[in-house]
Amino acid sequence: MKDMLGRDRVMTAGEALGLLMKIIGDRRTAIVSTDIQQALGMVCAEPVIAAEDVPAFARSTVDGYAVRAEDTFGATESMPGYLNLSAEIFMGERASGTVADDLACKIPTGGMLPVGADAVVMFEHVQVIDNKMIEVMKPVAPGENVIQPGEDIRRGEPVLMKGRRIRPQDIGACAGTGVLEVKVFERPVVSIISTGDEIVPAGRKPDIGQIRDTNSYTIAAMVQEAGGVPVRKGIFRDDYAAIRDAVQDAMKDSDAIAVSGGTSVGTKDMIARIIGDIGNPGILFHGVSLKPGKPAIGGVMNGVPIFGLPGHPAAVSVCFDIFIKPVLELLSGLDSRPAYRLRGVVRARLSRNVPSSQGREEHVRAMIEEREDGLWAVPILGKSGLIRTLVEADGTFVIPVNRNGVEKGELVDVRLF
Amino acid sequence: MKDMLGRDRVMTAGEALGLLMKIIGDRRTAIVSTDIQQALGMVCAEPVIAAEDVPAFARSTVDGYAVRAEDTFGATESMPGYLNLSAEIFMGERASGTVADDLACKIPTGGMLPVGADAVVMFEHVQVIDNKMIEVMKPVAPGENVIQPGEDIRRGEPVLMKGRRIRPQDIGACAGTGVLEVKVFERPVVSIISTGDEIVPAGRKPDIGQIRDTNSYTIAAMVQEAGGVPVRKGIFRDDYAAIRDAVQDAMKDSDAIAVSGGTSVGTKDMIARIIGDIGNPGILFHGVSLKPGKPAIGGVMNGVPIFGLPGHPAAVSVCFDIFIKPVLELLSGLDSRPAYRLRGVVRARLSRNVPSSQGREEHVRAMIEEREDGLWAVPILGKSGLIRTLVEADGTFVIPVNRNGVEKGELVDVRLF
Repeated sequence: MKDMLGRDRVMTAGEALGLLMKIIGDRRTAIVSTDIQQALGMVCAEPVIAAEDVPAFARSTVDGYAVRAEDTFGATESMPGYLNLSAEIFMGERASGTVADDLACKIPTGGMLPVGADAVVMFEHVQVIDNKMIEVMKPVAPGENVIQPGEDIRRGEPVLMKGRRIRPQDIGACAGTGVLEVKVFERPVVSIISTGDEIVPAGRKPDIGQIRDTNSYTIAAMVQEAGGVPVRKGIFRDDYAAIRDAVQDAMKDSDAIAVSGGTSVGTKDMIARIIGDIGNPGILFHGVSLKPGKPAIGGVMNGVPIFGLPGHPAAVSVCFDIFIKPVLELLSGLDSRPAYRLRGVVRARLSRNVPSSQGREEHVRAMIEEREDGLWAVPILGKSGLIRTLVEADGTFVIPVNRNGVEKGELVDVRLF
Repeated sequence: MKDMLGRDRVMTAGEALGLLMKIIGDRRTAIVSTDIQQALGMVCAEPVIAAEDVPAFARSTVDGYAVRAEDTFGATESMPGYLNLSAEIFMGERASGTVADDLACKIPTGGMLPVGADAVVMFEHVQVIDNKMIEVMKPVAPGENVIQPGEDIRRGEPVLMKGRRIRPQDIGACAGTGVLEVKVFERPVVSIISTGDEIVPAGRKPDIGQIRDTNSYTIAAMVQEAGGVPVRKGIFRDDYAAIRDAVQDAMKDSDAIAVSGGTSVGTKDMIARIIGDIGNPGILFHGVSLKPGKPAIGGVMNGVPIFGLPGHPAAVSVCFDIFIKPVLELLSGLDSRPAYRLRGVVRARLSRNVPSSQGREEHVRAMIEEREDGLWAVPILGKSGLIRTLVEADGTFVIPVNRNGVEKGELVDVRLF
């Protein structure tokens, strides 16, 4: 790469990664079926489509009385509406009664609304007269305190999108629609090749001049943390044929290869030469404007990405995060939108006002949107009884106990699920 | 709890958690030995003490020539120092030569310094005259470009502290000192009891009025994500004896218990009653000023923490993060300092100026310190060849390619390891 004056310029880390991603293109790991309980952290390879409505029937969201909303219109504390009691509704049972003219059925949270009822009056707004009659002291609107059939998940609509890393609530949503197996991308297998005439296995006492292997352990654990499967292939001497054979052998069963070691110029050049000689296309970068990690090497050989990592531990850690982790995410099918890739906490601008009552801490679910001017948090204000709101959300932010709400444009810290 | 006017006041989430933590006290999961390759994410239960110096000998950090620093004093490009070449040093071998008056040995990065040498001149500052003599064009100070014996890890000093969640570089550091087994706290076992007359197993077609189990799947995956071992105990009817027996049975082999369901007042009260009846001490809170999650129940029974989670999916998720996750961290021995507990990215104030060269992206290792005025990032400016700097660091922050450094007091985003 040339700079403005035509001199060779070392690539930035971003340019180097971009080149890698471009050459890897649409290569992905294999798609397999897995039990949803094993799917945590894996990437969804095919959208999961709901085969049924959730819930399949109208449910109450409160403890109260199922009614026809119109029978409560105009009710007040001083001028209550009188309703006769019909059969009580029990949890998990088909509602047997029917609500018609001035009738009400006692109903628990989650209970099924009886035929004819279109709303639920909360216990708090009812005065019980006897076991046959209640007074309603506040009107309800049609649909109030009710989850409609299919309101959470609608038959035929996607429960889970392709490219999404599967989170706990996604597994819950699958279970809720009766989906116990999902298609995921296999975890990428990363072979780790340690090189260096001075390196001995960690369990062997080093002679003077030798040191124990540390990097292959660090890299293996980083691969595991990134959702891959590490395979430590052993320690190889700084010898062209030995390392080349190890690399070619690893190409047979690896989605990516990390070669550790090669701190000295001679070894670094040897690893670069091997990658170049195997080719197709071979070396993509050799050295980046990065500290630590300047001598990093990246390449692709017949579709398999390979990394020559500097021997210094701090450089290994930085190069892993900058190059290997995003490549593993690409290979395992992760969608590139920030909310899918990022973990932890992101700061985003709030897209609308969200009111809250002082005196309680409110956790608001939000989607993260990437706009031209940065990340925005779009609150999802659905009922907390819907699993869908959790699946749509990328995370939550908190309105502290002493505030009345947060305003559009304010910065909030969204803890990503 | 009473407010200023003597009225009963609902606890805040913070107060409720504080009470839980206080009653749990110093209860922890059992301590077991594990292979370091299985230890990722577990919590160190005993400090790991280095049994040897790393490195055991002085090593070069560059490719160059091992010299006595004093022989290079005053050398410049126009007035170079002349040194005679002694035996070359090879990687992984005991340095055979001796450096004395005006002698130098060619040495690779990581090579062992020969007797008599105390510094290394980089290739870039040397002109080779022939195979017997070099010109040194820049002086080196004693110790320059050298890692001293024990400079990375010193025999008798701790490699890993008790209470630290074990990260990839911690595993690397253990390997580097020959420690292949570590003592860790066992992952806490969390039993999940689903209740609700309307709940059927996720794999069974629900009758009208019933719904499939979702929450036990969500909770199990959250337990797994938090480093625990979930055990789904099954679905129990809303019946005092059935749920009490399930809870008592779970107490035998669980470090914590989560009871899901109980959205209706009757069931919530039943779960609270069971916890109270088992006692010692029983219920700690029943309802918190939290949205969603207001009806959350927390208690401890003979040392085992138990949670009654509201049935609404969003409330389950919030209650898990606020109550169960910190309790699992406590039980599994995690130290309470923020850098150990937090994940992802934290914003902290920089404790000192850090210079950087424009034109390269610099990743700086930093410790997180909690001071009265918030979190501070303390840069660790050691050599990148030391694994210790990675073990001491809590994370890294980036100085972008177009900046000359960052100043004391600036806010930096530290990506925690």
